[in-house]
Amino acid sequence: MRASRFFIATLKEAPADAEIISHKLMMRAGLIRRLAGGIYTWMPMGLRVLRKVEAIVREEMNRAGAIELLMPAVQPFELWEESGRGPKYGPELLRFKDRHQRDFVIGPTHEEVITDVVRREVKSYKQLPRHFYQIQTKFRDEIRPRFGVMRGREFLMKDGYSFHASYADLEREYRNMHETYTRIFTRLGLKFRAVAADTGSIGGTGSHEFHVLADSGEDAIAYCSASDYAANVELAEALAPTTPRAVATQTMQKVATPGKTKCEDVAAFLGVPLQKMVKAVAVMRAEGGFGLLLLRGDHDLNEVKTQKVIGEFRFARDEEIVAALGCKPGYIGPVAGNKIAVFADRTVTTMSDFVCGANEAGFHLTGVNFGRDLPEPAQVADLRNIVAGDPSPDGKGALDICRGIEVGHIFQLRTKYAEALKCQFTDEQGKEQVMEMGCYGIGVSRIVGAAIEQGNDERGIIFPAAIAPFEVVIVPMGYAKSEAVRKAADGLLADLLAAGIDAILDDRDERPGSMFADWELIGIPHRVVVGERGLKEGKLEYKGRSDAEAQMLPAGEVLSFLKQSLCG
Amino acid sequence: MRASRFFIATLKEAPADAEIISHKLMMRAGLIRRLAGGIYTWMPMGLRVLRKVEAIVREEMNRAGAIELLMPAVQPFELWEESGRGPKYGPELLRFKDRHQRDFVIGPTHEEVITDVVRREVKSYKQLPRHFYQIQTKFRDEIRPRFGVMRGREFLMKDGYSFHASYADLEREYRNMHETYTRIFTRLGLKFRAVAADTGSIGGTGSHEFHVLADSGEDAIAYCSASDYAANVELAEALAPTTPRAVATQTMQKVATPGKTKCEDVAAFLGVPLQKMVKAVAVMRAEGGFGLLLLRGDHDLNEVKTQKVIGEFRFARDEEIVAALGCKPGYIGPVAGNKIAVFADRTVTTMSDFVCGANEAGFHLTGVNFGRDLPEPAQVADLRNIVAGDPSPDGKGALDICRGIEVGHIFQLRTKYAEALKCQFTDEQGKEQVMEMGCYGIGVSRIVGAAIEQGNDERGIIFPAAIAPFEVVIVPMGYAKSEAVRKAADGLLADLLAAGIDAILDDRDERPGSMFADWELIGIPHRVVVGERGLKEGKLEYKGRSDAEAQMLPAGEVLSFLKQSLCG
Repeated sequence: MRASRFFIATLKEAPADAEIISHKLMMRAGLIRRLAGGIYTWMPMGLRVLRKVEAIVREEMNRAGAIELLMPAVQPFELWEESGRGPKYGPELLRFKDRHQRDFVIGPTHEEVITDVVRREVKSYKQLPRHFYQIQTKFRDEIRPRFGVMRGREFLMKDGYSFHASYADLEREYRNMHETYTRIFTRLGLKFRAVAADTGSIGGTGSHEFHVLADSGEDAIAYCSASDYAANVELAEALAPTTPRAVATQTMQKVATPGKTKCEDVAAFLGVPLQKMVKAVAVMRAEGGFGLLLLRGDHDLNEVKTQKVIGEFRFARDEEIVAALGCKPGYIGPVAGNKIAVFADRTVTTMSDFVCGANEAGFHLTGVNFGRDLPEPAQVADLRNIVAGDPSPDGKGALDICRGIEVGHIFQLRTKYAEALKCQFTDEQGKEQVMEMGCYGIGVSRIVGAAIEQGNDERGIIFPAAIAPFEVVIVPMGYAKSEAVRKAADGLLADLLAAGIDAILDDRDERPGSMFADWELIGIPHRVVVGERGLKEGKLEYKGRSDAEAQMLPAGEVLSFLKQSLCG
Repeated sequence: MRASRFFIATLKEAPADAEIISHKLMMRAGLIRRLAGGIYTWMPMGLRVLRKVEAIVREEMNRAGAIELLMPAVQPFELWEESGRGPKYGPELLRFKDRHQRDFVIGPTHEEVITDVVRREVKSYKQLPRHFYQIQTKFRDEIRPRFGVMRGREFLMKDGYSFHASYADLEREYRNMHETYTRIFTRLGLKFRAVAADTGSIGGTGSHEFHVLADSGEDAIAYCSASDYAANVELAEALAPTTPRAVATQTMQKVATPGKTKCEDVAAFLGVPLQKMVKAVAVMRAEGGFGLLLLRGDHDLNEVKTQKVIGEFRFARDEEIVAALGCKPGYIGPVAGNKIAVFADRTVTTMSDFVCGANEAGFHLTGVNFGRDLPEPAQVADLRNIVAGDPSPDGKGALDICRGIEVGHIFQLRTKYAEALKCQFTDEQGKEQVMEMGCYGIGVSRIVGAAIEQGNDERGIIFPAAIAPFEVVIVPMGYAKSEAVRKAADGLLADLLAAGIDAILDDRDERPGSMFADWELIGIPHRVVVGERGLKEGKLEYKGRSDAEAQMLPAGEVLSFLKQSLCG
């Protein structure tokens, strides 16, 4: 490609509505242009990136045995009534009536349509399993579209749906997709984690999210750098500490802590570390009434985990706390006799000589010890969010916390849709059975934004070579003026293209600084400068996008050097 | 590919709502499945065809210098108000309000959006010309969607838009696109014609339609097989006959033709050929009042041409005819004195001894001659539709008439949109100018239907190799049972794939007749049968989709034979 025949639309400044770095850089690099809120034109430069992502996704899905088809964007609302999802879906679902007043939706997802196709086409266990996928433009009427293509209204998705005769076979395909997604994100050149996820509202059980790691990510992920363990912070298990409880060295004392109702304030006031504090959270359980949850002072309650232990609950109101403990909130604690139900986080049970509320306004207790000053907690469970440094649940090191952008999601839908839409098959015994289903999504356009969130610096985008709009840019110094430069640049372009390297020659003949800035902004991984001075010595200047310095290479070695860099 | 890993969904019967052959065959071959009226899922087999069409279109557009981008399907209605097209577009335009009550449309076409992009991005003549295109799913809310993908509501289109600093440059690009479209349809393997077209409602001047030739086509096309002349029948010029008028040999006589009011009936009644009849069509002109149009008995009036000659007109009512000629319709004619304005078609002026109405109920005149029985017609023009055998307007032979399906259209839009949306540039003199625009569409999904209308027989589809879902099918006889067959079939598949031939091996192990029928229905151009008997003699059976008989080929020559067939 030659820049003069392409369309480069870089901007000095990002528009004011661009909030995050990927949005700003995509606008400045001319990858996208806004048409309406959350609705963008993919400019030629951006479309190249999108298509490269799409091609890798398609290749790996095909390799994994999934079969591509293309379902309509417009779907009859009847199917959404049949699945039961129509009424539940909020205003994100774009509904409209056609000219004959029939109800339609612009599909944000295609579970209903594919299940309708399969229930008509697949009748026998012999035709199973099947995995169909598509790469298609979707529309979701977000209330506040933002972050450019990261949370747009119109976006490109790969959505796949698998159908199985048994749960065991669904599990096999689920593992196959876990591996396939891992291959896809690896080939895309992204740092990512597969994260055990809550299944949320889409239904079914068993689900992993694939996150591109970036500081700006919306989700917090607990991961182990010594293994591939990763989970949503809300779901990661906090193991019981392996260090035994230290023996008691202090006696219990009541100390005045006037006006200090927060854990942090009490610790500071008393001059003890936060790790020596036990905080008590008062709750009302749907079954069993009032209870106290005990957590170490520096830990946070995890409500999802807690609900699994104590059932439905809410936080206790002030008057309920006073009624149960005779003390207002801020000074409550577990040293309260046997009448109160106490649930201790695993970490708390290993604490000794700790500080807690005295159940008397203005006072705390220090040097408190289980089994002496209060009973050993009868019920111990994992009630807290993990923190960095916690041991990894797979026993392979310590956990760390990072932020991620969800770009893929795999679900075991089980029979949720197949049952509602009567998607059945005849098994080997001639019996009608409901199919097991999985679904597997990748946010193709979102990946472009996520890749930029992960790879950028003050000069612009740093694209992985696999999805950069071009792999190599040739920047000649004085293309119009110098025949030697022109010949060398043209020759190098021809050589690179012949070698299957996706190169562009910047023949616009602008100022060198302006051309360099454009291509660094756009994020091309490899740059070769062709200049008269270098040519006289038979050399070309090479610079990788992230290199601190350029280097001179013998002109004859540039091709093999780039081949090596790009193909390993 | 192996059939067991693909999805084949052939049907014995087409559904009742499939009216035309391509729709029936696409359903039966499992290329598409209906989701709602005019809305189809492209099944895996059909999607392969669609993608091959798309790839050829993309390659040739790129080669022609057009630059691909991707505009949103959802467009703000404001732009349609700005262009003035919004209010004019009928209910085919799908409009909706988003959750914030803003007006949007699902774009059936993208003139407004691309003009909006270009007016923001292109400021100088130095940035011109530019040609942007996209391949995108469109929605048009047809009142009566039918014919499967030929007139669907959701469909895939290539739409391109070019922007120029001068009309001369638009004309250059228009010719470039004419050539590009010719290359595209040639590569697709279709019989087609570029047809001079009326510009219709999209505006601007200069327009060609590209039609795939098929008997079932909606449009009649006049073409010259000795040249590339082709035009919509309504537009093709009927030249003046070159043979001079024969001398009069009869005298004019009034003959009784009771109850014979139609040209055909009078000719039959009198025993004269229809070519000896002159029919008179009575019209009321907006300027000039009553007039008679004269046509040869076997010719049809062309209203578009006529309007260009006599201005706005309508057909005369019975009472107006009686008032002007003293005779009711059915017996009127040009022998009526000088008081009547007569417009003769070119062919009529070369007739002699002709028959026409006598302007007296129940009578006609025979042996009528111009210059003797009535004046030479004062106004002569091309007023008729051409018929097969007419000379080609380019002087290169005779015209023939065929039917076509419009699959491409190129327009010179000129400044219609650029002016409305103020899409301007600064010229070399620093003056603001409005851009010249062209637009160029190809109905990608429609091409699939059109190709099938053109290529089919009683056994199914006959796809051109370039767009067949697979180029070659290998059908083994007893894949599961015979190791020799399995090895030979697997080996051939590997060889074909390695040679870049898109082959599928039917390893379903069904009855041979059923496998043959499936692949003939689907329209795979080349079939190789691997059987034990043939293998013993070192031979494989080959049959082209349109061949009457199969032939045995030495196994070692099959690859080179197929290479030869597919790559020329």
